[in-house]
Amino acid sequence: MTQNARRIVVVGGSAAGPKTAAKARRMDQHAEITIIQKAPDLSMASCGYPYYVGGVFDDRNQLLCTPAGVVRDPGFFLNAKGITAMTETEVVAIDREHKQVQCRKLADGSTFDVPYDKLVLATGAEPIMPPVPGADLEGITTLQSMRDADFLRKTRDDKKIRKAVVVGGGLIGVETCEALELAGIGITVVEMLPQILMFLDWELAKLVENHMRSKGSMVITENPVAAFLGEHGVLTGVKLKNGTELPCELAVVATGVRPNTKLAQAAGLTVGKRGGLLVDTCMRTNDPDIYAVGDCIEIPNLITGQRVHAPYGDLANLQGRVAGQNVATDSNIEFPGTIQTGICKVFDYSAGATGLNERVARDAGFDVETVISAAPDKPGFMGAKLLVMKMVAERGTGRLLGVQCVGPGDCSKRIAAAAMALHGKLTIADLGVADLPYAPPFSPAIDNLIMAAHVLENKMTGRMRGISCREVKARVDAGENLFLIDTRGADEFEQMRLGIGEVLIPLGALRRRMNELPTDKSREIITYCKISLRGYEVANYLEAHGYTNVKVMEGGLMAWPFPREK
Amino acid sequence: MTQNARRIVVVGGSAAGPKTAAKARRMDQHAEITIIQKAPDLSMASCGYPYYVGGVFDDRNQLLCTPAGVVRDPGFFLNAKGITAMTETEVVAIDREHKQVQCRKLADGSTFDVPYDKLVLATGAEPIMPPVPGADLEGITTLQSMRDADFLRKTRDDKKIRKAVVVGGGLIGVETCEALELAGIGITVVEMLPQILMFLDWELAKLVENHMRSKGSMVITENPVAAFLGEHGVLTGVKLKNGTELPCELAVVATGVRPNTKLAQAAGLTVGKRGGLLVDTCMRTNDPDIYAVGDCIEIPNLITGQRVHAPYGDLANLQGRVAGQNVATDSNIEFPGTIQTGICKVFDYSAGATGLNERVARDAGFDVETVISAAPDKPGFMGAKLLVMKMVAERGTGRLLGVQCVGPGDCSKRIAAAAMALHGKLTIADLGVADLPYAPPFSPAIDNLIMAAHVLENKMTGRMRGISCREVKARVDAGENLFLIDTRGADEFEQMRLGIGEVLIPLGALRRRMNELPTDKSREIITYCKISLRGYEVANYLEAHGYTNVKVMEGGLMAWPFPREK
Repeated sequence: MTQNARRIVVVGGSAAGPKTAAKARRMDQHAEITIIQKAPDLSMASCGYPYYVGGVFDDRNQLLCTPAGVVRDPGFFLNAKGITAMTETEVVAIDREHKQVQCRKLADGSTFDVPYDKLVLATGAEPIMPPVPGADLEGITTLQSMRDADFLRKTRDDKKIRKAVVVGGGLIGVETCEALELAGIGITVVEMLPQILMFLDWELAKLVENHMRSKGSMVITENPVAAFLGEHGVLTGVKLKNGTELPCELAVVATGVRPNTKLAQAAGLTVGKRGGLLVDTCMRTNDPDIYAVGDCIEIPNLITGQRVHAPYGDLANLQGRVAGQNVATDSNIEFPGTIQTGICKVFDYSAGATGLNERVARDAGFDVETVISAAPDKPGFMGAKLLVMKMVAERGTGRLLGVQCVGPGDCSKRIAAAAMALHGKLTIADLGVADLPYAPPFSPAIDNLIMAAHVLENKMTGRMRGISCREVKARVDAGENLFLIDTRGADEFEQMRLGIGEVLIPLGALRRRMNELPTDKSREIITYCKISLRGYEVANYLEAHGYTNVKVMEGGLMAWPFPREK
Repeated sequence: MTQNARRIVVVGGSAAGPKTAAKARRMDQHAEITIIQKAPDLSMASCGYPYYVGGVFDDRNQLLCTPAGVVRDPGFFLNAKGITAMTETEVVAIDREHKQVQCRKLADGSTFDVPYDKLVLATGAEPIMPPVPGADLEGITTLQSMRDADFLRKTRDDKKIRKAVVVGGGLIGVETCEALELAGIGITVVEMLPQILMFLDWELAKLVENHMRSKGSMVITENPVAAFLGEHGVLTGVKLKNGTELPCELAVVATGVRPNTKLAQAAGLTVGKRGGLLVDTCMRTNDPDIYAVGDCIEIPNLITGQRVHAPYGDLANLQGRVAGQNVATDSNIEFPGTIQTGICKVFDYSAGATGLNERVARDAGFDVETVISAAPDKPGFMGAKLLVMKMVAERGTGRLLGVQCVGPGDCSKRIAAAAMALHGKLTIADLGVADLPYAPPFSPAIDNLIMAAHVLENKMTGRMRGISCREVKARVDAGENLFLIDTRGADEFEQMRLGIGEVLIPLGALRRRMNELPTDKSREIITYCKISLRGYEVANYLEAHGYTNVKVMEGGLMAWPFPREK
């Protein structure tokens, strides 16, 4: 190292920290770069924990490896990158005046100071525990650390536990549910909110919940945990607010995380409304020599402009790259923010979202139009799988605000493409003429994203009036006598049907069965089919023949999240 | 139908035609809509022919079905859509003055006129046959029609043929190669150009060719067909320009298509430089009452502004939707053009591209920078598969111009996302901070598209100098004594290596082995590893230590399309 080498110190060695250090090294080969990490491991692929727990792979070192298979330990960082990485070392204080951090070795409690020219905080987030009795019982864990992952993997391998409760139906909750259910443990997911996976709107979340139930898991929503129950200090069950007791030997708490900012706050750095460190788009805190990246910060949502806490591994990496370059070269490259793109696998489904869902868009003050569109993800002859998509756009401008997608089909591609469309500020009219890669092994001739844009455009221009399955169900339950037309074929109707008082009039028979329709042409008629494409054609025909209040039930049977007659 | 119903006549019943008719019907329930189709079938999913031929499914009607399984025959069109569809009926002339088309029934040769208010031409494209002797021998076919598909499927099922030649290495050529090879027929693909799949640049096409060879197919490039050889009127072989004779019992010609515009030209409609009908963005020809859609037209490339012939099924559908609305309602909605997105499956690889490749971008006058980037498509522990990507951007502005991607990994998602990025006119800096859906089952923490953008940004800002595998190979072949460093581990080197005179200096050993490097610090040094990430880190280190001419071989071993020592 040269005499006047820049001293860059990174606190935190999980994702954002090592990325910052590595990028800083690439930008400045002469800097003295130090990572200080409290945990024993470095560069953990923490998003992979559920897959290690679930037995997708057996070697825990794969969570710590480079693509070439080298474990990223302090020796690797030193030899391959010239970076000093101290593990099991805690930073206990930041001395901004003298520009040094005070460190403590966990092994012996000894303390020492490390001076910095530029400091980067990547202190991550810590799990939020429900404030209920019994949270310290043996058998309660989170899935936030390698230690947690090791514990749950051992639990799985030991095959002693038969019932477990996952508290929280977010991304980690559902991934943990899948991992443990597939290991033969009976899982109940308990969520205090009315739905799991809050990045989805209610209707799509319910479809995922149904799928989880079909795989054997229980899902309980709108019912918070009231207490963890135990005997002799060991967990025996979970009690819910409504009194239900769920016997179990294991509880995994996945009720979210909060930014870990104690160290920064003690040093006088500014924290925002969401509890994360405030940084500018260059990742700089209110101290010009201190940057922060990853799960400990707040970042702007690029659509609403509001700051959010978005603890995602991919964003941590992007932020680390920006901070690394800026601290190494005094440049000002930017990470502008997030559109809150997320995805998870849930058994045979995937569920993803990008941008704003309807709930968030309305809360942010947008005048929105939405559509639910169901369609196969390929031509039928290629083994198509279903996707149910919800698209949210701004009225008037037609600007795309968000896309959600669930089902057994290829969600990931549609969410990736939708995310790019959001970055490009495209409208639904733009989406409707997008030139996407088409070949039968990969997509239908009109991709699901384009199809949804077309239907939403039809709604926005008044060519189609939609009604949600949820509203139909609520009105049927309230005893309303709706005129519902199932427009599928008789054979399809025999195999599967709602049984909520609908009449079956196949599209092909409509022209000769118009006499079966209400004589009052202003009466509300609701049409649907499997995915409501034929339902839409029937609605068009009825409107052209004088019916003035025809609605299409969006997404058809495939978007119906409630029980069916058959 | 009402008295003054608008008469909409559509010539052509494959993809664009029926879509136009169906959309027109949705917009106007009272119009008289007629489809006139020469072939016996309607709404054929022609992109699915190779998969029917290859035995992915057995029921040919699946190529003709709605998603609900109903065959789209004239009865279906009449009952479900109120559209008159005449099959095996040819339009022989357009009488623009009297606004009628003259039709001829193939069955009995009888003729009749159909009047129109609006006419839509969807006459498709016809295969180009090589102008060589023997093209009329029995055993030579194309794969452009249901009849061709039926013939090839029967050939496959009969199991009598052992060798076949596919003439032309475009999308249909490689798909046909796969279909027949998997059926046990030994296939040789013959391409007159220096590479297959011209939507790719040479380097990526060569990787696909190598994969096809690894699956047992022969691929011969830069060697046109000189003659089809036969005995007693039956094909016995294909002779190439260099004299090679390939014995075979079947030849499938897939050397491209040309717009079918005879009918339109005879009626005085304007044809463009690419041989397609000229239409405006509303799909209107130079006759305001005649529209044209699908494979018979030229459309603008949205990046170059130049008109191209882009015969893709998805674009045909998008154009049909636009034309259908415009002819039914006299509106002026637009299909702006194409970015020429394409994809195909080739055995275990997929190969896709969107926007401009380097060749096309340079021809169009862009000042381009490119990068080849190889990376796994997921974390290693999730069963990652390789993707090799080439990204093309404009120097100065950094505007993304195109992305190509090949390999066993998930190309389709990256091409779809890249296509949206092109529609949104994003720069590589935008791509470098894109918020894409990340979870281990779907992608690495830094998606391949973002990774490629980062590397390209490094090249554009002068932080990395790249050299292509092709140039390295050419210089090695020319006898140049290059200083090449393979920066991988010794174990990796044992398993696989180029053997072109490289020295092995693992990244982790570099700092203590600097003495093995040339003493002349201005000497060119070329570094690489499996994917050239470690190669890049070594290059950075060398530059920081005074070496002034260090280049990274882009994409590393994974992008090397030539034979290796092991």
